[in-house]
Amino acid sequence: MFGSINQQILLKSRPTGEPIEKDFALVETAIPELGQGEVLNRTIYLSLDPYMRGRMSDRESYADPVELGKVMVGSTVSQVVKSNHPLFSVGDFVLGYDGWQTYGIAKGETLRKIDPNQVPISYALGITGMPGMTAYFALLDVGQAKPGETVVVSAASGAVGAVAGQIAKIKGCRAVGVVGTDEKCDYIVNELGFDACINRKTKDLSSALKAACPNGIDVYVDNTAGPILEAVLQHINLGARIPLVGLISQYNAENPSYGPNLMPLLVKRALIKGFLVGDYQERQAEFINDVAQWLRAGKLKYKEDVVKGLEKAPQSFIGLLQGQNFGKLIIQVGDDPTQN
Amino acid sequence: MFGSINQQILLKSRPTGEPIEKDFALVETAIPELGQGEVLNRTIYLSLDPYMRGRMSDRESYADPVELGKVMVGSTVSQVVKSNHPLFSVGDFVLGYDGWQTYGIAKGETLRKIDPNQVPISYALGITGMPGMTAYFALLDVGQAKPGETVVVSAASGAVGAVAGQIAKIKGCRAVGVVGTDEKCDYIVNELGFDACINRKTKDLSSALKAACPNGIDVYVDNTAGPILEAVLQHINLGARIPLVGLISQYNAENPSYGPNLMPLLVKRALIKGFLVGDYQERQAEFINDVAQWLRAGKLKYKEDVVKGLEKAPQSFIGLLQGQNFGKLIIQVGDDPTQN
Repeated sequence: MFGSINQQILLKSRPTGEPIEKDFALVETAIPELGQGEVLNRTIYLSLDPYMRGRMSDRESYADPVELGKVMVGSTVSQVVKSNHPLFSVGDFVLGYDGWQTYGIAKGETLRKIDPNQVPISYALGITGMPGMTAYFALLDVGQAKPGETVVVSAASGAVGAVAGQIAKIKGCRAVGVVGTDEKCDYIVNELGFDACINRKTKDLSSALKAACPNGIDVYVDNTAGPILEAVLQHINLGARIPLVGLISQYNAENPSYGPNLMPLLVKRALIKGFLVGDYQERQAEFINDVAQWLRAGKLKYKEDVVKGLEKAPQSFIGLLQGQNFGKLIIQVGDDPTQN
Repeated sequence: MFGSINQQILLKSRPTGEPIEKDFALVETAIPELGQGEVLNRTIYLSLDPYMRGRMSDRESYADPVELGKVMVGSTVSQVVKSNHPLFSVGDFVLGYDGWQTYGIAKGETLRKIDPNQVPISYALGITGMPGMTAYFALLDVGQAKPGETVVVSAASGAVGAVAGQIAKIKGCRAVGVVGTDEKCDYIVNELGFDACINRKTKDLSSALKAACPNGIDVYVDNTAGPILEAVLQHINLGARIPLVGLISQYNAENPSYGPNLMPLLVKRALIKGFLVGDYQERQAEFINDVAQWLRAGKLKYKEDVVKGLEKAPQSFIGLLQGQNFGKLIIQVGDDPTQN
């Protein structure tokens, strides 16, 4: 049923600036014996997310860095192949944090069972998982988006942004996305129903935002910081809320670059607040109930960018930080029996 | 009882960078006739505050700029010399917004009577007025300062900062001030009871903050932005709150300078929120009750930097933006009968 060889991608060196393929190493190791309460999983899908760039550096962050020579971390959807835990049986599908490898061993308590009959099992890495929950609480809890308000979302075709913009529409807001290509603009407006879209490579971001947001900006779900945040601040309304979800524009910076002038915050009595989805674990049910209902009703659409083969992970991750993916980036590491 | 000549200081030109004396013009005009419901006030004290720099520019802000050739705006404590309003009588002391002139005419509804028997009438421009109320709500409402937490205050010997730090102590916090001279450091620690102080001209602001805040920073009442904010962000705790009260470091900048890198906000899930005291008018009673009680109990100390003569206002204001004042800067424009 499974081999005894585990393919792993290790962090070989800490990147300076953009990661390169040589920062990673693909190795083969034996699968160790299972300990008490542990489960052996065969990885089917591995999520690649911008936050992983932070784990590659030894700067202080909300989580420890990956040690050199250790397996890169990441959320995974897997199938149980061996279990020493009473709650998990061979054949179960589970959401875990096994990282960049074909097999993972985890304590049963760290795994969550996935029902393969609801939505595709890979969705647990995206719209019904961490990125979707990030979008939901960033927009509604920190952002406090209200009907009639204007919501701007950066990285708007990505795993978090696409959900944030669609929920904004469901809540009666004007949703404006910022993305990196015209093709993505077309997608979020014509497929996802955003009201307007701006290509971030446009010459005058500030004027483009002004045109797209005739009533100003009330909420900005910020996945990028950098020049987009700076331009948004020129057009915020009184009492605007800016959940800072990510700083994709900064992740590869070797030295912290400067941020925006904060005068508009004072003038508009607006707030910027750092957001981490881990702070919302206790409110997961709210999110799951709403999103499952919206998915069933066809109000939420979801696009995955699935790349096959664990060995493609480094290159795909480097592209993710450059905005080359289109939709939620996922590596298909192994066979998905629910798709056969 | 009063002359018929009004001395006024007008905005003559919009400054580029730091204001200079030539941006102002001292003129003499006749006092016009009083209209219905209006009151003629003789200015005793004029408040000089950093926000006035914003009014000298025609950049968008929370209030309209002063028009060229018009009287500079500002809060005033005055005595009524003529009244067409039933609530005000000759001899009353009033808090108004008559600006940089020896006589002002105002609608009665815009004035507030001051009781000269409680605290010196000039306090209405400082600790019991707008700056004190700014300190109070920035620290307690946006800042949510709790016992045992560490509160950092910039411009800590100024009108807002000195009150914020003292209230932090009253609330059981560790209070750390940042000021521009060793003399001011000595004052806020030995007179006002701050736990520690940093001269902002120190070579390594970040290390000095780290030493002064061994448990990290929970609240930062930011009057300055600029390098102090940047250094503070290196040491904030999880869930830190930063009310952005002023950007003294930026007010003279001709072009907006960059702000701090915002990565620490994400890592620490911290917030920065623009603050304007005008948003708290309805909660003035809370503030007045607490501050009056603390003043009576000797828990709050207050230092004024009184400069005599309206003609000194431009030079004093220029110095204020450079941090040359020591305590709340007030121009004594006319005789104070309560001090005789």
